[in-house]
Amino acid sequence: MEEKQKLSHLLRPESIAVIGASGTKGKVGHMIAKNVLAHSFEGDVYFINPRRKKILGKKVYPSVTEIGTNIDCAIVVVPAEYVHEVIEDSARFCKNFVVISAGFGESGTVGHNRESRLRLLADTHGINILGPNCLGFLIPSLGLNASFAEGLPKKGHVALISQSGALAVAMMDKAEEDHIGFSAVVSIGNKMQIGAADLVEYFVDDPNTKVIAMYLEGVIRGAHFLRTLAKAHKNGKKVIVLKSGRTEQAQQAIALHTGSLAGSDDVFSAALEKVGAIRAQSMDELFALVLFAAHTNGTYEKTVNIGIVTNAGGPGVLATDVIAEFPQITMSTFSKKTKNALKKTLPDAASVHNPVDLLGDADITRYEQSIKTVLADEHVDIVLVLLTPQDQTPVDAVAKLLIDLQKKTVKKIIASFIGGVRVSDAIAHLRENDVLHFTTPRSACRAIAEFVWNKKVYSLQEKNVDTARRKKMRMIIDRSYEQNGLYFEDAAEIADLYNIQTVPFFDITDGLSANSRITYPCVAKIDNPRIVHKTDRGGVIAPIRTLVELDRARKHLLKTFQEKNSRVIVQSLLPVKMELIIGMQRDPIFGTVILAGLGGIYTEIFHVVDHYVAPLTLSEIKNILTNRVLAFLFDGVRGEECYNKDAIARVIYAIAQIARENSEIVAIDINPLFIYNNDTADVAVDFKIII
Amino acid sequence: MEEKQKLSHLLRPESIAVIGASGTKGKVGHMIAKNVLAHSFEGDVYFINPRRKKILGKKVYPSVTEIGTNIDCAIVVVPAEYVHEVIEDSARFCKNFVVISAGFGESGTVGHNRESRLRLLADTHGINILGPNCLGFLIPSLGLNASFAEGLPKKGHVALISQSGALAVAMMDKAEEDHIGFSAVVSIGNKMQIGAADLVEYFVDDPNTKVIAMYLEGVIRGAHFLRTLAKAHKNGKKVIVLKSGRTEQAQQAIALHTGSLAGSDDVFSAALEKVGAIRAQSMDELFALVLFAAHTNGTYEKTVNIGIVTNAGGPGVLATDVIAEFPQITMSTFSKKTKNALKKTLPDAASVHNPVDLLGDADITRYEQSIKTVLADEHVDIVLVLLTPQDQTPVDAVAKLLIDLQKKTVKKIIASFIGGVRVSDAIAHLRENDVLHFTTPRSACRAIAEFVWNKKVYSLQEKNVDTARRKKMRMIIDRSYEQNGLYFEDAAEIADLYNIQTVPFFDITDGLSANSRITYPCVAKIDNPRIVHKTDRGGVIAPIRTLVELDRARKHLLKTFQEKNSRVIVQSLLPVKMELIIGMQRDPIFGTVILAGLGGIYTEIFHVVDHYVAPLTLSEIKNILTNRVLAFLFDGVRGEECYNKDAIARVIYAIAQIARENSEIVAIDINPLFIYNNDTADVAVDFKIII
Repeated sequence: MEEKQKLSHLLRPESIAVIGASGTKGKVGHMIAKNVLAHSFEGDVYFINPRRKKILGKKVYPSVTEIGTNIDCAIVVVPAEYVHEVIEDSARFCKNFVVISAGFGESGTVGHNRESRLRLLADTHGINILGPNCLGFLIPSLGLNASFAEGLPKKGHVALISQSGALAVAMMDKAEEDHIGFSAVVSIGNKMQIGAADLVEYFVDDPNTKVIAMYLEGVIRGAHFLRTLAKAHKNGKKVIVLKSGRTEQAQQAIALHTGSLAGSDDVFSAALEKVGAIRAQSMDELFALVLFAAHTNGTYEKTVNIGIVTNAGGPGVLATDVIAEFPQITMSTFSKKTKNALKKTLPDAASVHNPVDLLGDADITRYEQSIKTVLADEHVDIVLVLLTPQDQTPVDAVAKLLIDLQKKTVKKIIASFIGGVRVSDAIAHLRENDVLHFTTPRSACRAIAEFVWNKKVYSLQEKNVDTARRKKMRMIIDRSYEQNGLYFEDAAEIADLYNIQTVPFFDITDGLSANSRITYPCVAKIDNPRIVHKTDRGGVIAPIRTLVELDRARKHLLKTFQEKNSRVIVQSLLPVKMELIIGMQRDPIFGTVILAGLGGIYTEIFHVVDHYVAPLTLSEIKNILTNRVLAFLFDGVRGEECYNKDAIARVIYAIAQIARENSEIVAIDINPLFIYNNDTADVAVDFKIII
Repeated sequence: MEEKQKLSHLLRPESIAVIGASGTKGKVGHMIAKNVLAHSFEGDVYFINPRRKKILGKKVYPSVTEIGTNIDCAIVVVPAEYVHEVIEDSARFCKNFVVISAGFGESGTVGHNRESRLRLLADTHGINILGPNCLGFLIPSLGLNASFAEGLPKKGHVALISQSGALAVAMMDKAEEDHIGFSAVVSIGNKMQIGAADLVEYFVDDPNTKVIAMYLEGVIRGAHFLRTLAKAHKNGKKVIVLKSGRTEQAQQAIALHTGSLAGSDDVFSAALEKVGAIRAQSMDELFALVLFAAHTNGTYEKTVNIGIVTNAGGPGVLATDVIAEFPQITMSTFSKKTKNALKKTLPDAASVHNPVDLLGDADITRYEQSIKTVLADEHVDIVLVLLTPQDQTPVDAVAKLLIDLQKKTVKKIIASFIGGVRVSDAIAHLRENDVLHFTTPRSACRAIAEFVWNKKVYSLQEKNVDTARRKKMRMIIDRSYEQNGLYFEDAAEIADLYNIQTVPFFDITDGLSANSRITYPCVAKIDNPRIVHKTDRGGVIAPIRTLVELDRARKHLLKTFQEKNSRVIVQSLLPVKMELIIGMQRDPIFGTVILAGLGGIYTEIFHVVDHYVAPLTLSEIKNILTNRVLAFLFDGVRGEECYNKDAIARVIYAIAQIARENSEIVAIDINPLFIYNNDTADVAVDFKIII
């Protein structure tokens, strides 16, 4: 609570000081001073500069301490080496700072040290610092531009948080063209202290904000980030994230098969999906999503039906193809009434089905009657109007028509005028009057699709641990420390604690005497905690059909793998129906991540794998199983019986619990898990725990 | 040859008649009359209208026959019902017509009959007809607009062929904005007689055309289409195709497993790839590809190295991510010299690595020196300049700089100015001066990638058939007609003719007496040409381990499948290493198509399947195997031995040959083909031929 109050002082200040305000044109200190005064900000503004008396006609103070009153927020534009000093000096009168100055963590060792010291200062004095190395922030509803970006965007309900000041500038510039309004634009720069999550938390409570758009280059505290995004979602605020670059892979997990697949970028996407946030894939897509978000109020609850009206067949067909790509949207089937009405309106050659082709010679009356008819159809949620500027096309009149119609309907009209010079004025006119225009039907459809279905947010609350079970696992792991690490025997014992079935095995390291229960064909495997890719290294021999072959295999393995304490185990060969790989790794950002994919080459080559970010509930796991890449297992492909979703979900859940109940475990790998679509129980053929 | 000469009369006429020219503003006949006169066309122009004496100040003739001279090309704008008559009447003096009038094949039975009659007229009188139901055509280099689209685009080297007049109009409008020039714009309308392929053939020989862009809704004669595209490619002319809608699936092949996968859209893509043409996925992408094509001369021979210069870190990182998506382009590694030069130019905080971050306060000097340095690096082929309009950014000066630099270098400079109102003038300035500007780095990268690697065009020449072998197959098939169709025995015999190994089998329909050579475990299968999905229907029983089990299976199968003439066969169960599916089907457009994919669910669910359009050479097959979805088999995944590419290629080749040597065969299905990465030979477990 305290945190939030502080940020509201920073982002909705009643008084502002510009420390390092300058009278010299072109200097950042001048731009900010000018920008703060340039709009309708009604709070008090103070300029600080010990070497000047007046700037922009306004009195200048030598320091914050000389003002004689407390200040809500100070913008700091002095050179990096003086930042620490001025903040320390001002701390008695001001607790919120925006450090514009560069020369910190982003620039070498000196800067890095400087940032560490500044962070320490902030923490010890209970000070909030936005930045350093940032653009500042803008709050259109306050008429406040506390940044060195020129101008002030329209007031609106989109909050933009950007780790790149330049991208924020580009976005505001684009937004001016598209008539997008903002509740706030905040540049977080080095996010030394105030990160994206802190701002999301603030905007969740900001009544002016409905949508939160972010550009990020990385996330530090994954769990905190997800918690705040989930909160936004619960409060009906859509979050859109564009993230660039790839974070470091979890080094400790690369030894494991599944580890090598977990591009942490996949984990990032899975994490966003978990909390109902949208991931934009490019700047362009971010712009398109924000455009749509800025002009709509919240999400659609169910599949959105689109009616298309076009004056050109080709683009209509192309848009139909595009709509088919997105399961969340569909081509509306018109009612009889609609078709009859269209039949009366349109020439014989025109189509009264969706897409409605008005033909190239469509005049404004034909446009008006058709669009009104389609809008009135109860099976239509959104009308997409495509226009190519043919000779008879009343381009500007159609724009005007759409503007009028949009004012009178709650259904969204989306325009896509295709062309260049002949449509540009009309497009500008549409935008100025808040009719949605997308350059391509595809970007419109993608945006609509993302706003359909209010995805459930899964629990981010860790379940309690089973302390008795945890103690037992603890003992097994402690025991393993005394030997060479965790052998298959130990892993199987842990699996058993969590009700994961493993294939029975016998240790034949010392000979075959006691192994009469072995059924053939069987498989012999080297077992040594230090040997990870045993199949690749020839540590698995199968099929073995006789006792003689088995003993030969045993000797061969012991000779090949002379690593200390190697053991040889034998298991029956089970019939193969379908193989999965289930793994656990610790992501440096988001913590425990479970991977579940198809066995063998299919995970590795074709990336048929889903990521599950812990904590997990059984119902979340089942939901992901049902809706992502493994879904086909439960659909009864080609008339086959379905696989047992509950059983697979329980294994995934158990793996998450093992990871939860012992934080020393670095990675887990079930490879393969044999699954069946008859009554046979799923069984882990190999089970590896890395500590 | 004759065909081509005719089209050159049509598309480069020295005299034009407008039949149905009108003096009434707003009428299509008036627009065309006006357009033909509006530009610098130097040929003779005649207006035909029996009810008018003068139009636009020009003498009007009652009919073509009254002109008293031959006419190269007549544009027909009379109502549909009079078209046949005027063409018939004019045929003595004119052999080339463009029928603008609608009301033909596109509009019901009456129109359809009208088009059939017109086509007959054209064929019997040796007449060329473009259209009907088209926009007309425009040849900028002749100053000729013979269409009802207003204006005339810039002269250039792109020929546009569009099945949608509206899309052509939109494209020309966009092209005006982007300063794209055309050698010709031709609307093909109903393509009754002159189709896309005929025009491609013409443009291959047109010295003014370097790139051919097309919008198509369908292709009729696939082989002819591919031959002309291949010819274009051989002549160094890039072809870009946007195709909408999905063609009909080959109905006769749906009975077969692989048949159901062959969305003929995949076949279309495979066909284009075969002849080195580019497929655009959307209008947007078509525009972007044409933009790039219009400003470049031909393709890049090898991987293109990109150097990025940006005044904003974020977009630079995003563009780096995008470049990583395309294997044909790469981030350039700068030479030491370049880095040293950049170090001297740039402030300490700036990056001298690729992407070069000039920082937000970059002035024009910093821009100039950096871009010049990067352009001079021999490891850089293309410089991508990203700009966001920050306060200190000299947006217009940078545009001017890029224009100057582009004039002095053969390397391409590509700009991407990110924003809205603050960059729009600069973008327009860049475009007017022929500096490439893309709205997003992604569309630029995609375009560059498509123009890298002069893909080999594969032979379109059918190989001679092996008549002896053909005769033998003929006999087997004839024999099958006398029975119930082709049994496994017959298919295996055919396979043997083509050196495809099948798993040995025994017919045990009548009992087990003679089958002492069966090795266990084995599999029993129902064998009946009428039963296609035998596995799904329970017609395959395995594993069978004893003679008793086998006889039980035999009886069970015969009881379950009481279809007349059912047989039961038995085969040994082979060890499974990797399964492929190889199939053949006849595509209604492109003819014989081979599919090769991963067995089981992986073809069906994950579409791990490649399409091969016949005719095929062994080297083409190997090339596709090496470069598409099955490539991983030959890479030695996870240290495994590679699979035998030559052997798999030979099977695919053999299937194509079987299809070639007997046109009665509707489909072939090897499902599965077991392949091995040791010395074991690949073997077809099931081999089905559908006639």
